[in-house]
Amino acid sequence: MKTLLLKKEEVSRLICMKEVIGTVEEAYTAFNSAEVEQPDYTSIHLPPAGGEIDFKLGYHKTNEMISLKASSGGFIENPTAHGVPSAMGTILLFDARSCALICIMDGSLITGLRTGAAGAVSVKALARRDARKITSIGTGNQARMQIRAIKEIMEIEEIHAWDSTPNTLSKYKRDIESEFGISVIMANSKKEAVEQADILVTTTRGKGSLVEAAWVKPGTHIVAIGTDQQGKQELDPEIFRNAKVVVDSIAQCIEKGETWHPLNKNLIRRDDIHGEIGEILLGKKPGRENDVEVTIFDATGMAIQDNTTASRIYRNAIERNVGTFFQFFGS
Amino acid sequence: MKTLLLKKEEVSRLICMKEVIGTVEEAYTAFNSAEVEQPDYTSIHLPPAGGEIDFKLGYHKTNEMISLKASSGGFIENPTAHGVPSAMGTILLFDARSCALICIMDGSLITGLRTGAAGAVSVKALARRDARKITSIGTGNQARMQIRAIKEIMEIEEIHAWDSTPNTLSKYKRDIESEFGISVIMANSKKEAVEQADILVTTTRGKGSLVEAAWVKPGTHIVAIGTDQQGKQELDPEIFRNAKVVVDSIAQCIEKGETWHPLNKNLIRRDDIHGEIGEILLGKKPGRENDVEVTIFDATGMAIQDNTTASRIYRNAIERNVGTFFQFFGS
Repeated sequence: MKTLLLKKEEVSRLICMKEVIGTVEEAYTAFNSAEVEQPDYTSIHLPPAGGEIDFKLGYHKTNEMISLKASSGGFIENPTAHGVPSAMGTILLFDARSCALICIMDGSLITGLRTGAAGAVSVKALARRDARKITSIGTGNQARMQIRAIKEIMEIEEIHAWDSTPNTLSKYKRDIESEFGISVIMANSKKEAVEQADILVTTTRGKGSLVEAAWVKPGTHIVAIGTDQQGKQELDPEIFRNAKVVVDSIAQCIEKGETWHPLNKNLIRRDDIHGEIGEILLGKKPGRENDVEVTIFDATGMAIQDNTTASRIYRNAIERNVGTFFQFFGS
Repeated sequence: MKTLLLKKEEVSRLICMKEVIGTVEEAYTAFNSAEVEQPDYTSIHLPPAGGEIDFKLGYHKTNEMISLKASSGGFIENPTAHGVPSAMGTILLFDARSCALICIMDGSLITGLRTGAAGAVSVKALARRDARKITSIGTGNQARMQIRAIKEIMEIEEIHAWDSTPNTLSKYKRDIESEFGISVIMANSKKEAVEQADILVTTTRGKGSLVEAAWVKPGTHIVAIGTDQQGKQELDPEIFRNAKVVVDSIAQCIEKGETWHPLNKNLIRRDDIHGEIGEILLGKKPGRENDVEVTIFDATGMAIQDNTTASRIYRNAIERNVGTFFQFFGS
C-alpha cells in the first residue's frame, strides 16, 4: 500500500485554472445532486499565536473520494519567528471504497485556486453576456486569482480597482497589466470603481467600509468572496433587497456568508434566496433572466470544491508520473 | 520546512508499552487540568463497504501540539478486494505555535496501544493491591493488549478467559502463555470466568450477552473497554448500582460508553459517577477506598491519548534519527 506525496511546486504544475473551473462546477453540481457529504468543519483557535487551524471534510459519493483539508491561517509571526508562512495547508485523499490513504498533498494553493474558480463559475451563470468591465474591491491575492479565473471564460476589457492601501493597489495594477495585459484603472474612491462595474468582485476580507447600494448599476453581477464567517461584511445589505441572490450553500451562507446580513436585518427572507449555484448549473433554476437585474453570488467555500480539485490533481499526477510514493505500512 | 514521515514498523519500535502507560496518564491529567481541547469528532459512514472513517482532533495546550487521527474500520472486504487491512489509521501532528505539519505517522497501532494502556492506568488507580487474577471476557487483539499493559504494572498470577468462539479462546491461551508465560485457564462459561476475577476486562465490542451482576465478587475492578458507541453493551447495568464508577470523560461516557446503560435505566444518576480518571491521578478524588468495593472504569477513548502518545513517538524518532523527512513546500 503506497501513498502518493505531492509538494506545492508539483501541485502547482499539475493543474491549470481551466481545469479548476471544471472541478468547481463538478463540485457544485454534485452538491445539488445529493452526491456529497460535508460534515461541519472543526477548528482549533490559537489565541496566543493569533491564528487558527480548520479541518474540512468532504465525501464525493460518485467519485468514491474522501478529502480532508487541514488549513491554518493568521499566524503573522510565522515568517520571522518560525521560518514558515503565516498560512499553510495539507490535503489528504482517501479512496472511499477501502478508506486507504492514497495521497497527501500540499494544500496551500488549492483554496485560492478553487475560490478564484468559484467566481468564474458564477460569472458564466449569472453575468451579462456583454459584460466586459470588472471592478475589483480589494487587490490582494484572491483579487488576482479572480481575474486569473474570470479571464478564462470571458474577455475582460478593463479593470477598475480600489484598495484601502494605495501601495497594494499600484502593485496590483503593475502585476495584472504585466501578467495578463489587461488595463487596470486605479479608482480614486470605492464609489467611482463600483459605478463602472459590469462585474463587481469583493475580496476585502470584510473588515472595512461597505459597497453602497446606490453605487451598483442595474445589470451588475456581484461576486461576494470576502465574507466567510460572522463578523465580516462587504456589501450594504440593501443591495440584496431587489437582487437575485445565489449562494454556494444555503446552509453555510445564511450562517456566515454575506447573505447573513440582509437576513439578520429582515431585508430579505430565506425564501428570497434564488437558489444554490449548482441548481442553476443543473438547469433546475434559471440563471440571469434579463440585462437589468442585479445578481449576487455569495461564496463561502465548500469542502467538496477541495475534494474535486484535489482529486483531479491526484489523477493528473498518476497519469503524468509526478510525485513521490511513500509506504506507511505493508509491503 | 520538513515533515517527518513514520512507517508502521518504525512507530512500533519507537515506543514501548511502559511509555504508552506514561503518555496515557499524561493525557488524563492534562484533560482534568483544562489543558486540552477536543472538538467533537467527525465521521463519514460508508454503508456500501460496511465501514466508517473517523477524524479525531486534539490539542494539548502545554505541549503546544495538535493531533489529528484519521482511523477507518469495518471494511471487511479490504484484504481480499483491495489488498489492504480492514482497519487503517494515520496521525498528523502540528506544532501549535505555527501550525506547521511536523509529522505524519501510520496510526494503525496507536489506538490499540493507548487503549491497552488505559486499562493499566485504571488498574493502578482502582484495583486492589493484592489483585493477581485477571478475567478476560473477549480474547481478541485488545484483550491481548490489555494483558501486555497490565503486566507492566502488576504481577499477573493467572488469567481466566472466555470467548464466544472456542478457537479464538484456545489461540489466545497459546499466545499469552508463550509470549508472557502467564497461565490461561479457559473457562467453560462466562460466569465461571467472572467469578474468578480480581480484575475483569471486557473487550467483546459489546454485541453479545452481558456479564451479570450476581457473578461479580466484592472487590473486583472492572475495565470496560468494548463499549464506545451507542448500541454496544457488555455489563449488566445492575453492576453500576453499588459500584464506584470512574470514566475517562463524563461527556463521552454518558453519551456512548457503558455508563449510558444504567443512566438510561435510571439505575444511577449522573451525580453517582465518582469522577474522571484524571481527577484520581491528580489526587482531586480518591481511588479505591477499601477491599470490597466494586470499581468500574468505563473507557471510550479520547483524542488526547492519541496526541500525547503520537507526540512521544515523534520526539523519540527525532532523538533516535528514525524516519524519513519530506518537504511539502519551501526550501
